[in-house]
Amino acid sequence: MAKATVLRKAQFNAAHRLFRKEWTDAQNLEVFGPCSHPHYHGHNYQLWVILHGVIHEQTGYVYDLRKLKQLIEEEVMEPFDHRNLNLDTQEFRELNPTAENIARVIWGRLRKRIGPEFGLQVRLFETERNVVEYSGE
Amino acid sequence: MAKATVLRKAQFNAAHRLFRKEWTDAQNLEVFGPCSHPHYHGHNYQLWVILHGVIHEQTGYVYDLRKLKQLIEEEVMEPFDHRNLNLDTQEFRELNPTAENIARVIWGRLRKRIGPEFGLQVRLFETERNVVEYSGE
Amino acid sequence: MAKATVLRKAQFNAAHRLFRKEWTDAQNLEVFGPCSHPHYHGHNYQLWVILHGVIHEQTGYVYDLRKLKQLIEEEVMEPFDHRNLNLDTQEFRELNPTAENIARVIWGRLRKRIGPEFGLQVRLFETERNVVEYSGE
Amino acid sequence: MAKATVLRKAQFNAAHRLFRKEWTDAQNLEVFGPCSHPHYHGHNYQLWVILHGVIHEQTGYVYDLRKLKQLIEEEVMEPFDHRNLNLDTQEFRELNPTAENIARVIWGRLRKRIGPEFGLQVRLFETERNVVEYSGE
Amino acid sequence: MAKATVLRKAQFNAAHRLFRKEWTDAQNLEVFGPCSHPHYHGHNYQLWVILHGVIHEQTGYVYDLRKLKQLIEEEVMEPFDHRNLNLDTQEFRELNPTAENIARVIWGRLRKRIGPEFGLQVRLFETERNVVEYSGE
Amino acid sequence: MAKATVLRKAQFNAAHRLFRKEWTDAQNLEVFGPCSHPHYHGHNYQLWVILHGVIHEQTGYVYDLRKLKQLIEEEVMEPFDHRNLNLDTQEFRELNPTAENIARVIWGRLRKRIGPEFGLQVRLFETERNVVEYSGE
Repeated sequence: MAKATVLRKAQFNAAHRLFRKEWTDAQNLEVFGPCSHPHYHGHNYQLWVILHGVIHEQTGYVYDLRKLKQLIEEEVMEPFDHRNLNLDTQEFRELNPTAENIARVIWGRLRKRIGPEFGLQVRLFETERNVVEYSGE
Repeated sequence: MAKATVLRKAQFNAAHRLFRKEWTDAQNLEVFGPCSHPHYHGHNYQLWVILHGVIHEQTGYVYDLRKLKQLIEEEVMEPFDHRNLNLDTQEFRELNPTAENIARVIWGRLRKRIGPEFGLQVRLFETERNVVEYSGE
Repeated sequence: MAKATVLRKAQFNAAHRLFRKEWTDAQNLEVFGPCSHPHYHGHNYQLWVILHGVIHEQTGYVYDLRKLKQLIEEEVMEPFDHRNLNLDTQEFRELNPTAENIARVIWGRLRKRIGPEFGLQVRLFETERNVVEYSGE
Repeated sequence: MAKATVLRKAQFNAAHRLFRKEWTDAQNLEVFGPCSHPHYHGHNYQLWVILHGVIHEQTGYVYDLRKLKQLIEEEVMEPFDHRNLNLDTQEFRELNPTAENIARVIWGRLRKRIGPEFGLQVRLFETERNVVEYSGE
Repeated sequence: MAKATVLRKAQFNAAHRLFRKEWTDAQNLEVFGPCSHPHYHGHNYQLWVILHGVIHEQTGYVYDLRKLKQLIEEEVMEPFDHRNLNLDTQEFRELNPTAENIARVIWGRLRKRIGPEFGLQVRLFETERNVVEYSGE
Repeated sequence: MAKATVLRKAQFNAAHRLFRKEWTDAQNLEVFGPCSHPHYHGHNYQLWVILHGVIHEQTGYVYDLRKLKQLIEEEVMEPFDHRNLNLDTQEFRELNPTAENIARVIWGRLRKRIGPEFGLQVRLFETERNVVEYSGE
């Protein structure tokens, strides 16, 4: 009953803007800097989905990565790729699309589709230098 | 009078949309695919600026890369970083902001600031897998 | 009539072996080292396909990269991905599948499908440290 | 008695095939997809070996990475590099060489050579997008 | 009160030498190899600073990464970048500047500036293949 | 008589300092910035050696990369790795060790060892963002 961790990477390209609508422009600029710019900017978000579970005796797999790729396709690529996160998604109408919150939302979407016998962690690269992780804590 | 090539990298994060306003949505979708989505999407554009010239006898430099960094700051980062290319820039009001055209525009901006004794080439990564180069040809 | 270069990357995973059947094992080992091992070894081949041509006035594209992706799918991924180059392909029954020859074969396959108005170059990474380029010269 | 973690990377190039011999070809294809292809395919496996232990007062090292490199040479490169995992190794005659199982086998080989005062973890990249980790759990 | 992890990367270029002054040259060469060479050598040290904490309800941030960048500027770049670690810093006058000890020193500098409500970990790449982590253990 | 290009990568870690001894410290600081710091700093220099030539009919090789690796070992790693370029090498006693000059010196060393039937180019990464190329022009 050996356990292992498997990771699968994906990438989606999206526009977003960080701001709180009840704040003034000056407040938003102070807190969010150029990320608050009204006409949006964008990123190549690189996503790692990380599962922890038992290595299956017969297949030698923890999880079929082709299935995981399909799940990521449905739960992440479909709603977020080539989209404006603020305008085109239900989740970020009110919630600020920071990397932390995007990771949390993706984790929640995947958690519903992956059995409870697997640990789940999401790592999101907003740029090469800014990275976040969320694991349901 | 030995000659060498020097490269300097930078990155800017921007939103854009590919479409022609005189075309129907269906035409735009057929030609530009999800890149034509009306609410924009975005990228971490990675830029390489490439200069070719004589190695200066005294300094051993072809071009002071700190000066080149400053030029890139003024001519690329300032107008394009954390911006919407279609809405926030003069150049892409009419011109489609494909990677090819972005590279051409950046080349034109830098060409004016760099002496004619230097060859100039621009390489632009829109994603890790899609890359363009422009050298004034 | 500005011209630019566009690159598209892909990856295929294949097994191969370097040897000449008319040579002894000792000769093959001397020339090809561990690459001559009889039971094959393998690589994640990373491929860059590089086109040079005119930027189309209306679209701003040199070449539709989605079409190029489709071409690579048909001419490279289909015949070579998850295959044994020596045993499963027509081209390498007699020809030694060195990185140089693989690049040359891929170039030949793509050259037939891409109009003569485009320059074509193929870059192939056999490992992170060993890379070849072929441009029909 | 401060503790730290040290990582050392290596790469080996190998051929493999995923299948169970008691299954039909159709079953193998369904479960393992193109990885079940009979003539093998291959990968550049990138390996990270990760040790956790006390920073030695005199040297400032957790573990001499030149020694670790030597261990990896003997226990991983020697048996697996430029080999066919299914045909050329004792471990994968019966065991399916999935990334999970390869990581587990490498961990077992290294665990015997590294003192129990060190924590040991193995991370294995089969491709840039498929990664596994094993830590003896 | 969801928690997440955020990472910020930086790079500094420094010279160093590994040796103990009470040892002979032969002893130092045996233990530290070419790293003990008397005239120093150097590295592009890549640094990841990793914070763990609560996602702030209003901003959606765990920690403002622009502030973290500023902290890294003051506590790491200022004292270490373009310096000789052995000669130009207080910390490594007596302490051997191994990657482990550099990570420990950087962790100590940052720990004083970052509130106790945040977990802190430092990852340091001395080269692409040699990496260490320190988390105050 | 098809021709192709082959590349081989290597890395060396060295200390250096940029300055002209006949200039004042203030002059050196103005021209070379923190690179002029008297106690040296250092880099992981990443080197690409690029050869252009005929694909050999029998072997399918342009150049045996194991031989090229050996040449790089003798002409680059041996004299420069884990060294202080200013103090430990003949070439940079008088010549400023800028990336341009280092590339030129490496090119000259390799040119003597590689037959005139091969084109030769050297690419040198001083950091991830600063790169130079030299080809004997």
